[in-house]
Amino acid sequence: MIDLLKRQTSLAKGLVLDVLSEGDSAVDATAGTGADTVFLANVVGENGRVYAFDNQWEAISKTAARLRAAGLTQRASLFFRGHETMGDNEALRRDSGIKAFMFNLGYLPGGNHQKTTSAETTLTAIKSALKLLAPGGIITILAYMHPEGRQEYDALSLYLSTLLNPYDVYRVETVNHQNAPVLFVITKKEE
Amino acid sequence: MIDLLKRQTSLAKGLVLDVLSEGDSAVDATAGTGADTVFLANVVGENGRVYAFDNQWEAISKTAARLRAAGLTQRASLFFRGHETMGDNEALRRDSGIKAFMFNLGYLPGGNHQKTTSAETTLTAIKSALKLLAPGGIITILAYMHPEGRQEYDALSLYLSTLLNPYDVYRVETVNHQNAPVLFVITKKEE
Repeated sequence: MIDLLKRQTSLAKGLVLDVLSEGDSAVDATAGTGADTVFLANVVGENGRVYAFDNQWEAISKTAARLRAAGLTQRASLFFRGHETMGDNEALRRDSGIKAFMFNLGYLPGGNHQKTTSAETTLTAIKSALKLLAPGGIITILAYMHPEGRQEYDALSLYLSTLLNPYDVYRVETVNHQNAPVLFVITKKEE
Repeated sequence: MIDLLKRQTSLAKGLVLDVLSEGDSAVDATAGTGADTVFLANVVGENGRVYAFDNQWEAISKTAARLRAAGLTQRASLFFRGHETMGDNEALRRDSGIKAFMFNLGYLPGGNHQKTTSAETTLTAIKSALKLLAPGGIITILAYMHPEGRQEYDALSLYLSTLLNPYDVYRVETVNHQNAPVLFVITKKEE
């Protein structure tokens, strides 16, 4: 269990496993190299659905390759556009069974470090996710403390502290290592 | 797993279970009503040892009664003095197998709410605990956000952020509920 505090990506997955079941839908809001997309596609099974967003073609392409290699292409819809468009996405709006959103902020691993998520688009995306999330669902957000990430983190932290019922918001962080990522977890109560 | 974020006392126990084994020693730095003392005494078993501190007689008396009811009196040493005295305690100084310290700050449940732990004595106790803790061990600290607790929390937060190797420090908190407790977790690396 201590390892989960050290490896917050594992903690995020563990928490998603708590609520996401076969047949559910899920969103990878930052497809990146596709790790979370593949994870979610495995969990929702043949009758589930995963939507993945990324505004970099390199990420969409890597994610597609990873899904193909895992034989999971049929379970996922990839959208080559930023997660700030989620609120207008017809597929998501029609799907009342979205039980999990995963955000992994910052830049694409191995990609251009100048292309990072930003406070404004991230907040837009999170607000849409809160609305689209089914009761009983979960949102995980990994935020990084590199210089560009700091402002995004501050904006996020401030916004999440204002959320009211039916949401609970938790933060898990490493206190004594500068620039360690912070995990936010949002749960939405059952109706 | 989400329930552990909601119930931080359970999370603290779960993390202690990760490292504390039969035959080890452990310290309940704030005996209070004795819940953690009994928990620790169960985990360390017949060959282990639990030391519990409290500067209120009511707490020591309740803890003693609870240990007796559980048939665990033989495994525990109760000290009717504040945890700031831990560093000078001969029993603790001679024991190289202390793998866990649990702190539950604030006031005694059901007791006088004016009698709370304070920033100064708590920091003294934490510093002693860091030294007395065996490699591979863990310290859990539940801090509360009532008005008197706020200053203690700030001092603690500042101090813990300065800790270096061999310590890792984590914080788990609820973001959108005022006055929700905060859990600090400190681990000490194996030598």
